[in-house]
Amino acid sequence: NLEVSERDSQTSHRTITLPGLIDIAAFVPNISNVIKGPAELKEASRVALEAGFVHCQLMSRALRSPIVTDAISLKAAYSTATDSSYTNYSFTVSGTSNNPDYVAETSKDVTALFLPFHELKSKFSIVSDLLKNWPIDKQVIAEAKTSELASILLLASLQNRPIHITGVSNKEDLSLIMTVKEKDTRVTCDVNIHSLFVSQDDFPESRILPTIEDQEFFWKNLDAIDAFSIGSLPDAVAQVTGNKISVGLGVKDTLPLLLSAVDAGRLTIEDIVEKLHDNPIKIFKLPQQDALVEVDMDYPFKHTKRWSPYMKGGLNGGVERVIINGETVVLSGELVATELRGDCISTVAPAQIVSVPPEIPLPKTGT
Amino acid sequence: NLEVSERDSQTSHRTITLPGLIDIAAFVPNISNVIKGPAELKEASRVALEAGFVHCQLMSRALRSPIVTDAISLKAAYSTATDSSYTNYSFTVSGTSNNPDYVAETSKDVTALFLPFHELKSKFSIVSDLLKNWPIDKQVIAEAKTSELASILLLASLQNRPIHITGVSNKEDLSLIMTVKEKDTRVTCDVNIHSLFVSQDDFPESRILPTIEDQEFFWKNLDAIDAFSIGSLPDAVAQVTGNKISVGLGVKDTLPLLLSAVDAGRLTIEDIVEKLHDNPIKIFKLPQQDALVEVDMDYPFKHTKRWSPYMKGGLNGGVERVIINGETVVLSGELVATELRGDCISTVAPAQIVSVPPEIPLPKTGT
Ligand SMILES: [Zn+2]
Ligand SMILES: [Zn+2]
Ligand SMILES: [Zn+2]
Ligand SMILES: [Zn+2]
Ligand SMILES: [Zn+2]
Ligand SMILES: [Zn+2]
Ligand SMILES: [Zn+2]
Ligand SMILES: [Zn+2]
Repeated sequence: NLEVSERDSQTSHRTITLPGLIDIAAFVPNISNVIKGPAELKEASRVALEAGFVHCQLMSRALRSPIVTDAISLKAAYSTATDSSYTNYSFTVSGTSNNPDYVAETSKDVTALFLPFHELKSKFSIVSDLLKNWPIDKQVIAEAKTSELASILLLASLQNRPIHITGVSNKEDLSLIMTVKEKDTRVTCDVNIHSLFVSQDDFPESRILPTIEDQEFFWKNLDAIDAFSIGSLPDAVAQVTGNKISVGLGVKDTLPLLLSAVDAGRLTIEDIVEKLHDNPIKIFKLPQQDALVEVDMDYPFKHTKRWSPYMKGGLNGGVERVIINGETVVLSGELVATELRGDCISTVAPAQIVSVPPEIPLPKTGT
Repeated sequence: NLEVSERDSQTSHRTITLPGLIDIAAFVPNISNVIKGPAELKEASRVALEAGFVHCQLMSRALRSPIVTDAISLKAAYSTATDSSYTNYSFTVSGTSNNPDYVAETSKDVTALFLPFHELKSKFSIVSDLLKNWPIDKQVIAEAKTSELASILLLASLQNRPIHITGVSNKEDLSLIMTVKEKDTRVTCDVNIHSLFVSQDDFPESRILPTIEDQEFFWKNLDAIDAFSIGSLPDAVAQVTGNKISVGLGVKDTLPLLLSAVDAGRLTIEDIVEKLHDNPIKIFKLPQQDALVEVDMDYPFKHTKRWSPYMKGGLNGGVERVIINGETVVLSGELVATELRGDCISTVAPAQIVSVPPEIPLPKTGT
């Protein structure tokens, strides 16, 4: 079901068509702030759309604190997002020490329960309660690392429920997840894309980045990584290194970084589609979208307005067009949509193959 | 099946008859040393027998390093122990970074695989291999604490095998074990007896002791504690506090401490029998022994030769007699056996109710 049109015979640039990508851990820290939120989401969703993403699942946290934690903050987020997004979006709700008793009230309006690392570190019985109260058919996203990871995997196993580990950051953790996946395929995980390309060798001050050894382990075990995410890693690295944080940091790097890995023979286009589209849909039971992204694989990528954890340059890959429901919303990498038509995917239908219009061969872009 | 003969009506001292006790984590650090081992085991088993223990399961480690790790060191331990023990004994073998491939060769001659904390900390994949290679019908004893505990419980759960956690040392760990026990009754645990009576309040320099809060949690959740053990805690506290380490440290405190708790209404005689006899037999599939211990509940207990982590005094409880196979081997708390008749329980039969001679009412001791 992957549509790749290689056009090297007709043009010096190769164009591929991908399904609309899904950002499963979009970082919009003011989403529940009705004052600052709308403009932030508008900008974040513009950047996302221009980068090829047509759905943003919003992580429920700022750099340090959870944001959507109950029906009231969810309502604020809902109000913030209405008519403020170019992409479809969905909410997640954070589990905290305070909300095990009522967090499930939000479950039908979110795609997942989000368990933030800082908030729940060493709070085993609270996490246990959060999971117990959360509907079994709704996903759980855990930021668990190192010592917390085994606990959360154990709890999920005891409660016989699926769990998704986001932002796996070292080889021991991935190795543990792989061991569990052998027995239980409902355990899934993602790594932040920048973790595959930037390491502690580049930023020794940023311990949240992997070591070179961790990174090699990730690449060697790509099959165990169900999805790629952006997450808050670019912002966290910017913070530690004293660089400017701005909305959508690192999002536009996604395809250029991954396509460079395709060129280097470390990844296939199929891997990208699997980890930024197919698996996100399966893991979070997202509905199919009629959305296509035409990518020029050889377009030289330049960082213009934003800092990025990956500043080494030499990347190629440009989004030529994004087409949603037959309408071109991005052209030559720039937003052309004039309306904020993103829908809230709050009630999640079980994933199924619906009759999506055939992915039409796109006209040659001729650059 | 508990035989308690209260005799307060006949004498000022009450006497109870217990089945022969089992020390599931006996600390004999030189057991695989054919030079130092025999005298150490002779002394350790004498102290054990005088304290009411008729079977010592030997922990496979010294204070820091594993001791029995392969067929060769097991053979040395076997040679050391032959004709050197007053009690029955059994060996455990340590899992280490080096022996996952061959440790199982020893399995039929030991009662359990012992996973020492210091040796296997943060070595998830090695522990995974150790468990995979160990026969499913043989017990595993893990010293896992805190961050390692969830990992080992997860591995046992994934491999669908029983596991015994020894020396639980804080309330978070017991709480985690309790959560797992709700789903899987094959998870068992013990606490070191001194952890119930001595805390960091008594020895602030000894972080291996529980806090007062941990200790209260232990007492509140005695039902979740399958067994009591002695372990190396007394030696470890002696080391940290600069007190003299000697063979059998803390062993003689066992019954006086526990009986003081019975007197204080915090424990029942039935609890003692369960956690020092019935459950050890079930957990480690030990054969029944024909052994009885007559205890004078009101005999004032005095520390004579050895330091102890519990020096507050005020304890009562004295072993009057130990009778094995109908023969008195301890009288008035002193060894009277002249032969070292302890057997190696190396091949473990499934636990079953065999026809043990009825536990005869003992003659009144009349003190
Ligand atoms: Zn190329
Ligand atoms: Zn799609
Ligand atoms: Zn733009
Ligand atoms: Zn082009
Ligand atoms: Zn017995
Ligand atoms: Zn009394
Ligand atoms: Zn004596
Ligand atoms: Zn007496």
